[in-house]
Amino acid sequence: MQRTEISTMGEFGLIHHLTKDLKPQQPSTIRGVGDDCAVMDFSEGTPVTGDGLRVLMTSDMLLEGIHFNLEYVPLKHLGYKAAVVNFSDIYAMNGTPTQITVSLGVSKRFSVEDLEALYSGIRLACERYGVDLVGGDTCSSMTGLTIAITCLGTAKAEDIVYRNGAKQNDLICVTGNLGTAYMGLQLLERERLAVMGDGSRVTAQPDFEGKEYLLERQLKPEARRDIILKLREAGIRPTAMMDISDGLSSELMHICRQSGVGCAVYEDKLPIDYQAVVLAEEMNLNIVTCALNGGEDYELLFTCSLDDYEKLVPIDDIYLIGHITKPELGTLLVGRNGEEIPLKAQGFNAFQESEK
Amino acid sequence: MQRTEISTMGEFGLIHHLTKDLKPQQPSTIRGVGDDCAVMDFSEGTPVTGDGLRVLMTSDMLLEGIHFNLEYVPLKHLGYKAAVVNFSDIYAMNGTPTQITVSLGVSKRFSVEDLEALYSGIRLACERYGVDLVGGDTCSSMTGLTIAITCLGTAKAEDIVYRNGAKQNDLICVTGNLGTAYMGLQLLERERLAVMGDGSRVTAQPDFEGKEYLLERQLKPEARRDIILKLREAGIRPTAMMDISDGLSSELMHICRQSGVGCAVYEDKLPIDYQAVVLAEEMNLNIVTCALNGGEDYELLFTCSLDDYEKLVPIDDIYLIGHITKPELGTLLVGRNGEEIPLKAQGFNAFQESEK
Repeated sequence: MQRTEISTMGEFGLIHHLTKDLKPQQPSTIRGVGDDCAVMDFSEGTPVTGDGLRVLMTSDMLLEGIHFNLEYVPLKHLGYKAAVVNFSDIYAMNGTPTQITVSLGVSKRFSVEDLEALYSGIRLACERYGVDLVGGDTCSSMTGLTIAITCLGTAKAEDIVYRNGAKQNDLICVTGNLGTAYMGLQLLERERLAVMGDGSRVTAQPDFEGKEYLLERQLKPEARRDIILKLREAGIRPTAMMDISDGLSSELMHICRQSGVGCAVYEDKLPIDYQAVVLAEEMNLNIVTCALNGGEDYELLFTCSLDDYEKLVPIDDIYLIGHITKPELGTLLVGRNGEEIPLKAQGFNAFQESEK
Repeated sequence: MQRTEISTMGEFGLIHHLTKDLKPQQPSTIRGVGDDCAVMDFSEGTPVTGDGLRVLMTSDMLLEGIHFNLEYVPLKHLGYKAAVVNFSDIYAMNGTPTQITVSLGVSKRFSVEDLEALYSGIRLACERYGVDLVGGDTCSSMTGLTIAITCLGTAKAEDIVYRNGAKQNDLICVTGNLGTAYMGLQLLERERLAVMGDGSRVTAQPDFEGKEYLLERQLKPEARRDIILKLREAGIRPTAMMDISDGLSSELMHICRQSGVGCAVYEDKLPIDYQAVVLAEEMNLNIVTCALNGGEDYELLFTCSLDDYEKLVPIDDIYLIGHITKPELGTLLVGRNGEEIPLKAQGFNAFQESEK
C-alpha cells in the first residue's frame, strides 16, 4: 500500500487534499473550509434580506510539545491564549465571538488544581471578550495535555469579510507589530536553556529584563477587537481580512491566491517593535525574516479600498505596508533598496516539528 | 501547593467543579454546560415566538489509547464513529445535526493515505446524515491520533428536549439494545490477545463467526435519527432525553438528578441482544451488568408521559423499561425476583484508564 508522508504536503496542502471536493448539503451552510471561519445562515427559509444574522464557527487544537511547552508557559496563560486565538478568528471575519466549547485531554500528570489554573485563564478571556463557555468534553490522555476549542460568533451578512475580496490597488494594512510573539518564544527558549545550563551562562533564574513586552506577546496575546470596532466606527469595511497566526508572508499569500491578485509590501513599512529588534541583534537573527514568518502575532491583516485612506489614517495602531497588484506581478516584498523579493510561505509549519 | 488527583473526582465531578459558577453574558446563550448540547438563540432581538429556531452545539474528543485502539479499529470506521457520536448528541436534544468541524492531531506514524481513510469515514457519516463538514484544524502531535469534533444542529425551540424534564409516573424508554457495543469491545480485545498468542488458543486469525453484530455495534454505531423521526410522526415529545454513551445506569442517574425525580427500571425489561448473551456466557460476564454499565451504545434513553403510551406501542425498536418515581424512592433496578437494587454509575469512566 502506498504511503505518502504528511510532511510532503504541509498543513494547508493536506487540508486542501482532504476537503477539496466537499459539497454542502445543508441550505444553512454558506461557507465551509477555507477561511478563518465557516459561515452559517440559520434563518431557515425566512426571506433573508441583506442584514440577516450569520453564525460563524472556528476550531483550533493545541497540543503539548507542539504548540506549547509547559516548562515556561503557565497554565493560566495557556488557557487565556487558547481562547483568545479562537476569538481572533471570529474578529478576522469582522464578527463578534459569542460562545466556546472546550475539550481537554489530560494525563495523570495534571491535578485538579492544574485544570483550575487552565480554566481560570479561559474564563478570564471569556469575561474580557464577553464570550460564554457553553460546553465541551474532558477526558484522560495517555500523555500530555490537548486542548480543542470551537468558537461560535455572529455577524451581519453584509459585514462579513472573507479572504477572497482583495482588489487591485487596495491598500494592505496590518495592526500592531510583527514578529514580536516569535521573538518572545526565542527569548523563552534561550532562557530555558540558560537556566538548564547549556554552558553559555551561569544562571539560576531566567533574565527577561527590558524584554517583558516580548513575553507578553508570546504568552498572553490579545485579539484585535479594538481594531474591528474602530474600523466599524470609521465606516471602513475591509475588502479581505484574516488574522496573522502563521506569519505575514503565509497569510498574504492566502489572501492573494484566494482573491486572484498579487501584492507588493515594503520592507521599511513593516511595523517592528524595538525590543524585538534588540533581541534579534543579540541572537543574530534577521528581524525582517522574523516579522515576515514568525507566527502567533494574532494581529489583523486586511485590505481596503484606496477610497478609505482618509478614514484610515486617524486610527491608531494600523499600518499601511503595501498595496494589491495584478496577479501576474506575483506576491513581492520590496526591499529597502527597491529590490523585489518573492514572498515565501515558510512560516510556522507544525508538521515539520513532529517527533514520532 | 495542594495537589488533588483528577481520579478522585471523576469526569462529571471534574466538569461540574470547573464550570459550576459560569454565568452567561451573551443574550444568545439559552443553555450552557450540563446537557447533551448547548443551546443558542441567534434571532437577535427579533421577538421570538414559540417556534423560533435554536442552534445546538456539542463537542467530543477521542484520544488514541483511551477511546480507540488502532490494532483493531480501521481508520474509516473510526472516522465514521467519531462523527456519528456527535450527531447522536444532537438527536438526543430532539434536533437535527447540520455542520461539523474536525480537528486532528496526528503523529508521523500516520500517512496521507491513513488520513484519507479517516476522512472517508467522516464523510460517509456526513453524507448519510446530511451534515456538512465546514472546517477544523489539522496539526502534528508528538504521539498518536487525537480527534476533536464539534457539531452544530438546529431545533425549533418548543421541540428541544432537555435532561431535566422527567416527571413522576413518566414512562422510561430505551431504543435498540444495551451492552452490545461493550460486548463487541470485549470480543475484539479477546481476539486481539488470542491472535497475539496469550497461550489460551492457537490461532492466526481472529474468530468473529456468529458475532458480527457485536462488532458492528462497537465499530460502526449509528445515531438514532430514525427514532427521532418516528417519535415526531407519532406526535410524541419526550419529557427528558439523552443518548446512552456512558451506560444506562449513569445516564438514568443524570436524568433523575437533573429532573429531581427517582426511577424504577426492571431487569427483565432491559433489551439485550442474543449474541451479547452468548458471548457474556462464554466470557463469564454478567450480561445485566454489561447492559447497565457498558458504554458506547449510542441508543436513546427517554421519558414520556403515560398519555403517550398508546402512540408509543406501535413504534418498532422502542422498549419500556420502567417508570419515573418520587425522588425519595431513589434510582432503583428491580430484579427478576422483585428485589430492589440501587443503581450505581460505575459506567465508563475514562479517568480510571489513564496511564501516565
